[in-house]
Amino acid sequence: MALDIKALVGELVTTCADNQAVNHIEGHDLPDKGSVEHVLDMLLAILFPGYTHGKAVSPTSLPYYFGDLITRVQSELTSQTERALAYDCRIRKTEGECHSCSRATEAVERLLEELPALRQMLKDDMRAAFDRDPAAESLDVILFCYPGIEAIATQRLAHVLYHHGIPIIPRMWTERAHSRTGIDIHPGAHLGRSFFIDHGTGIVVGESTTIGDNVSLYQGVTLGALSPSKGQVLRSVKRHPTIEDDVIIYAGATILGGETVIGKGSVIGGSVWLTESVPPGSRIMMAMEDLVIRRMAGSSDRRVPARSR
Amino acid sequence: MALDIKALVGELVTTCADNQAVNHIEGHDLPDKGSVEHVLDMLLAILFPGYTHGKAVSPTSLPYYFGDLITRVQSELTSQTERALAYDCRIRKTEGECHSCSRATEAVERLLEELPALRQMLKDDMRAAFDRDPAAESLDVILFCYPGIEAIATQRLAHVLYHHGIPIIPRMWTERAHSRTGIDIHPGAHLGRSFFIDHGTGIVVGESTTIGDNVSLYQGVTLGALSPSKGQVLRSVKRHPTIEDDVIIYAGATILGGETVIGKGSVIGGSVWLTESVPPGSRIMMAMEDLVIRRMAGSSDRRVPARSR
Amino acid sequence: MALDIKALVGELVTTCADNQAVNHIEGHDLPDKGSVEHVLDMLLAILFPGYTHGKAVSPTSLPYYFGDLITRVQSELTSQTERALAYDCRIRKTEGECHSCSRATEAVERLLEELPALRQMLKDDMRAAFDRDPAAESLDVILFCYPGIEAIATQRLAHVLYHHGIPIIPRMWTERAHSRTGIDIHPGAHLGRSFFIDHGTGIVVGESTTIGDNVSLYQGVTLGALSPSKGQVLRSVKRHPTIEDDVIIYAGATILGGETVIGKGSVIGGSVWLTESVPPGSRIMMAMEDLVIRRMAGSSDRRVPARSR
Repeated sequence: MALDIKALVGELVTTCADNQAVNHIEGHDLPDKGSVEHVLDMLLAILFPGYTHGKAVSPTSLPYYFGDLITRVQSELTSQTERALAYDCRIRKTEGECHSCSRATEAVERLLEELPALRQMLKDDMRAAFDRDPAAESLDVILFCYPGIEAIATQRLAHVLYHHGIPIIPRMWTERAHSRTGIDIHPGAHLGRSFFIDHGTGIVVGESTTIGDNVSLYQGVTLGALSPSKGQVLRSVKRHPTIEDDVIIYAGATILGGETVIGKGSVIGGSVWLTESVPPGSRIMMAMEDLVIRRMAGSSDRRVPARSR
Repeated sequence: MALDIKALVGELVTTCADNQAVNHIEGHDLPDKGSVEHVLDMLLAILFPGYTHGKAVSPTSLPYYFGDLITRVQSELTSQTERALAYDCRIRKTEGECHSCSRATEAVERLLEELPALRQMLKDDMRAAFDRDPAAESLDVILFCYPGIEAIATQRLAHVLYHHGIPIIPRMWTERAHSRTGIDIHPGAHLGRSFFIDHGTGIVVGESTTIGDNVSLYQGVTLGALSPSKGQVLRSVKRHPTIEDDVIIYAGATILGGETVIGKGSVIGGSVWLTESVPPGSRIMMAMEDLVIRRMAGSSDRRVPARSR
Repeated sequence: MALDIKALVGELVTTCADNQAVNHIEGHDLPDKGSVEHVLDMLLAILFPGYTHGKAVSPTSLPYYFGDLITRVQSELTSQTERALAYDCRIRKTEGECHSCSRATEAVERLLEELPALRQMLKDDMRAAFDRDPAAESLDVILFCYPGIEAIATQRLAHVLYHHGIPIIPRMWTERAHSRTGIDIHPGAHLGRSFFIDHGTGIVVGESTTIGDNVSLYQGVTLGALSPSKGQVLRSVKRHPTIEDDVIIYAGATILGGETVIGKGSVIGGSVWLTESVPPGSRIMMAMEDLVIRRMAGSSDRRVPARSR
């Protein structure tokens, strides 16, 4: 039988009646995704002048370039932040104490004031990538071609807003980076200086992770919770590990638990699975495993140690 | 020597002479990628009114909003579906029995009629994400920031077309979600209700997988075939596992094989590799492995159990 | 206190004074990201006529279609390549010997001349995907829906420029593919014919990897270096493995080291970790491991072999 569009529309309208999630009806207080991502692009253009806007920047134009972007970010981000705070108040039913407007203004100003310091931190991150990756041709290549830098820069911005208690927007930013890079760092994670991510696809860094200075992560590393599925009861507990300074964690390693501390200068081998602390200077790798080698002829199976150490 | 453009053009034209793949010459019967993705965006806008279109929706405007999108999807998707069916007929040489037009109309109408039910299923999926992830701030944040929801919504839409035997388009949709989220769920997979995916990058769910209700998957999980490389001879065999209700599968676990059944309520630990069935209520984790710890000084190696259970 | 925009602008300008990275001030010699990606889109449109441009191509229009794209690629890519070479000269302080202009012209002409041969190679790649994946419906579906083909086509283009010593642009291309597919193949890697990648998310193939003909890779495979963190001292050493013809490497396997050779016809199982060579015809899989199964009632733990072989 032919489609009854009128009945279908009626049914769909009915599914919105409970006004719970999966609807954004009259949701004037939720941030606009397009605007939130546009602000992120402008902030990245401040952090990396000349790389991302497709137009040349000269010493003469530089102050105007920065000034223009700063004033536009301030206006647009304050407006979106007010919406995020108002939304948060509404769903937490604390309308009386919201003061979204002044809190938004304050948080955005603090974020803007952090930008010169963030630029210095990102220089250190890029230098770390260059020093640690033999395939890196030059510092500029790192900015153009290393997804880790986009993920780290985005998280450092998101972390400032997160730290000031701004809801939703920090996670929208890190999720934009996740979609583009495969690197998923929660805005709440604390990242030290000279942080290097190589390749990066599949990396997950949880909300309460702490990472020291000069740390390197390779693709597929998880810094996660031991029982992530326990849900909302764990909301404010430290659930994710602490990585001290000068640690290297190779591809596919999984380190779990809020009490797990990886001591300074340790090296964690690929595919290692750790749920306990290790002391400073440790070198952890998977114990030698036998692999089974079968010849195609199938005459006999041999076991050989497959990992050289 | 300088480039001979005329000769080069001639050579390129010659490479098209066999008219086999890597050409789409006069391919009027293949769907248009841009149009197919535009239809998907409109369907997601119906499923999540107000989130994705950058314009406010009010109770008054809601019927017009739905009605407008439904009529546009119906027209555009029917046209693309006809092309997909005609293409499929042509390459299978079954032109006499195609009836692309009536089959396309029918499949698209059935998809549209499913939309209210799909909206209810997606509410359950979002509720599952909120209940199971301590980092989730609110239901709306899940819609903005959880790639799992985009991947699941897209697959649920694709699955309806797949179920009606529509070629190509379902896979184009799930591949769009794969590109944006790193989550690769084949349109043929059966997903139960209240399905939760956290982080998600690297997840692969094969065509003949069956997943029950209240299942959670973390990043890097593979639900795959035992010998995927055997190719076209396996085309219609059940090659992928069955996951019963209330199962949790942690990051990086690999579960393979069409006869493998993970019993109701089981918990599969991170990085586990399973090719056999396990009974209901199982808790599977990798056996304790020794990890080698070397001190930097290199004085002595110790073996320590590295996994607490 | 209110934000002092003038002071903030001054601070930001100061952070640019060292003119080192994280600035692109008067960087007229760095390629433009938008232009470099646009050229890649045009090259892919030459390789796959009719699929990517949203307009029909007919036998009559085909020569004009190719001719138009070739002349536009030649002009735009030569200009961007000159910038990349000039930049490279500047940072290596070898200005006297640059000849960017003639080298750019030469490299781009050689790339264009390779296009007919690249089209033939890509036909083989698509045929390999169709033959080896039971879920593949048709050759055209592979082009629309298999991220592996986009990653392989992009890398084959990048490899030609890399081979001619062009800096930056090859990596920008493969990184575009990485962002869209989760597949990270360095432009320097040598890929044989009939190369098949399934799913692909998380694959990393390093700069000095050599891959033979008829090789298949699944998601999450790393072909990497043993000590990637040693940095710039390893810049021109062979650091990544050699994979001979007819090898299959299943999901999540990690193969490391410049002296590691996987012999012809070998099959490497999922999650295997290899740092030594294996002879031709080997079948390597993880040795049987015990998994611990706990019943929910907790009465007794059993150990069972969890992997069938």
